[in-house]
Amino acid sequence: MAFHDTLRDVQRSQQSLLCVGLDTDAARLPSSLPRTVEGILEFNRRIVEATHELVCAYKINLAFYEVLGEHFWQSVHETLALIPRGIVTIGDGKRGDIGNSSSYYARTLREVYGFTASTVNPYMGTDAVEPFLEDPDHGVFILALTSNPGARDFQHLRLRKSPLYEAVVRKARRWDTRRNCGLVVGATRPRQMQRIRQLAPSMPLLVPGIGAQGGDLRLAVRHGCDRQGEMALFTASRSVLYASSGPDYASAARLAARALRDEINSVRTRR
Amino acid sequence: MAFHDTLRDVQRSQQSLLCVGLDTDAARLPSSLPRTVEGILEFNRRIVEATHELVCAYKINLAFYEVLGEHFWQSVHETLALIPRGIVTIGDGKRGDIGNSSSYYARTLREVYGFTASTVNPYMGTDAVEPFLEDPDHGVFILALTSNPGARDFQHLRLRKSPLYEAVVRKARRWDTRRNCGLVVGATRPRQMQRIRQLAPSMPLLVPGIGAQGGDLRLAVRHGCDRQGEMALFTASRSVLYASSGPDYASAARLAARALRDEINSVRTRR
Repeated sequence: MAFHDTLRDVQRSQQSLLCVGLDTDAARLPSSLPRTVEGILEFNRRIVEATHELVCAYKINLAFYEVLGEHFWQSVHETLALIPRGIVTIGDGKRGDIGNSSSYYARTLREVYGFTASTVNPYMGTDAVEPFLEDPDHGVFILALTSNPGARDFQHLRLRKSPLYEAVVRKARRWDTRRNCGLVVGATRPRQMQRIRQLAPSMPLLVPGIGAQGGDLRLAVRHGCDRQGEMALFTASRSVLYASSGPDYASAARLAARALRDEINSVRTRR
Repeated sequence: MAFHDTLRDVQRSQQSLLCVGLDTDAARLPSSLPRTVEGILEFNRRIVEATHELVCAYKINLAFYEVLGEHFWQSVHETLALIPRGIVTIGDGKRGDIGNSSSYYARTLREVYGFTASTVNPYMGTDAVEPFLEDPDHGVFILALTSNPGARDFQHLRLRKSPLYEAVVRKARRWDTRRNCGLVVGATRPRQMQRIRQLAPSMPLLVPGIGAQGGDLRLAVRHGCDRQGEMALFTASRSVLYASSGPDYASAARLAARALRDEINSVRTRR
C-alpha cells in the first residue's frame, strides 16, 4: 500500500496527527534513570507506553543515537521494537548522497532498521533522492523549508521567480510518482506553509517546530493539513519527552501529548 | 593546529594530493574474501597497507558502513584504527540538521569516531554547520557543487546574480573563521571549479568524481589546487578499490593509486 494511504489510515484509526520525536538525550534523562543505553531504552519504553494511543507516528532522530557509538544500531533497533505495529515510524537522518551511496542509506533505513518512512536532504538532487522513493510503501519526507534559523541562509534565497524551497517543492511533486513522497515544512513559518500546501495539495507534510522551537500550532494545523484535515504530522520532541524531569515523566509526557493531540484535533475539525 | 595547516603539512610530507575513498561494498569484495564484516575489514587492511604511502587522506563514506547494521560502529572504528597517524581521515556522512541535533552529529564524527574532518550538507544553513566548525583542528567540507547528475537540480539554479552553489561558497568563506572549513567540489565540472577556486583561494577543496564518475583529472588539478599547487584532495574510490577483482587486488590498488598520485603531481608541479 502506498505510503500516502498508510498514513491516512493510521491518522484515521488513531484519530491523531501528532508525531512524537524520540530525540532521547542521556544527559536529560530523569535522575531516576541511569545515563546509559539501558536508561535511554527504559525511558523510550515508558514514553512509548504512555503515548502510543495518542500519536500517528514516532520520529527517531538518528543524531541522538549515532552519538552512542557501538550502541547505535542496537538502541535504534530496540526502540523500534517498542513501537506497536500500525504506528508510522520515521527515520529522521536527513541523509542524501550520490545515487550509488544513497542506495545504501535507503537500504539501511528501509531494510536494516525497517522504518516506515525517512527524511531526505534534497541538496544533491534527483539521484540522491530516487533510491529512497523506489519502494511505494516507504514514505520519503524531503526537507523543503526547515524550522531552524539557518533555513534563512539558502532555503529562502530568491531564484528568478520564487525561493529555493519552492523549487524543492515543485521538484518533489515530480518525484512523487508512487504516492510516497512528502515534505518537511517547519511550523515556524506559517505563511510559507500555506503557500507550500497550495503547491502540493495532497502530499503529507512533516511539521517540526511546534514545541521547544516556538512555532504556532494552531496556524500550522490550519495551513498544513490537506482538505480533509489530514496528511500533516505535527512533531513534538522535547516538550513531550521532558514535560517533567521527575519520576512522573511518563505520565507528564502522556498529558503533554494528549493536550497537543486534542489541540490539533480541535483546530482541524473546525475547518 | 588549524585543519588548513594540518592538511598542508600532510600533503607536503606525503607528497600527495590523493585521497582514497574506502567505500567498501561486501558485494564487490574479491572472491578470495568472505562477504562479511571480517571480509570488509581484511580488504580495508590490505588496501590501506598497499596505499598509505601514496595518499594524504582516506575518506570513509558512512553509507557503506551504516548498511552493516549492528556492525556499523565497529567496522568504522576498526577501519580507522588501520590508518597510520598523520594521514587525514574524512568522515563522509554529509550530515546536517538543526543546531541542537547537528551538535550530536558533530560530536559523533569528531569524538565517537575521531575523524580528522567531516563532510556537511549546507541546505539547513548556519546553525546546522556551526557545531562541526567549533573545533579548529577538525576540518569541515561543505557540499558546494557535487559530482553527481542531481547537482543540476538545485545547485545550479540561478539566484539573482549567481547560482546557488556560489552562494554556498560565499557563505562558507564567512563560516571559515577558524581556518578549518573547506568545500566539496566535483571534478565533473572543471569550469565551475575554476570559478569556485577564485572565490575561495585558500580553502581546501575535496574533489570527488575523478574515477568511476568520469571527471577529467588534469583539468581538476589545474583548477582545484591553490597557488602553491596544494589544498585540494582528489578522491578516488571504486577505481582504486576494485582495480582488480582477483587475489592481486591490493597490488592492483597500489598501482592505481600510484598512477593517480603521479598524474596529479605531474600536473600540479607544472604550474
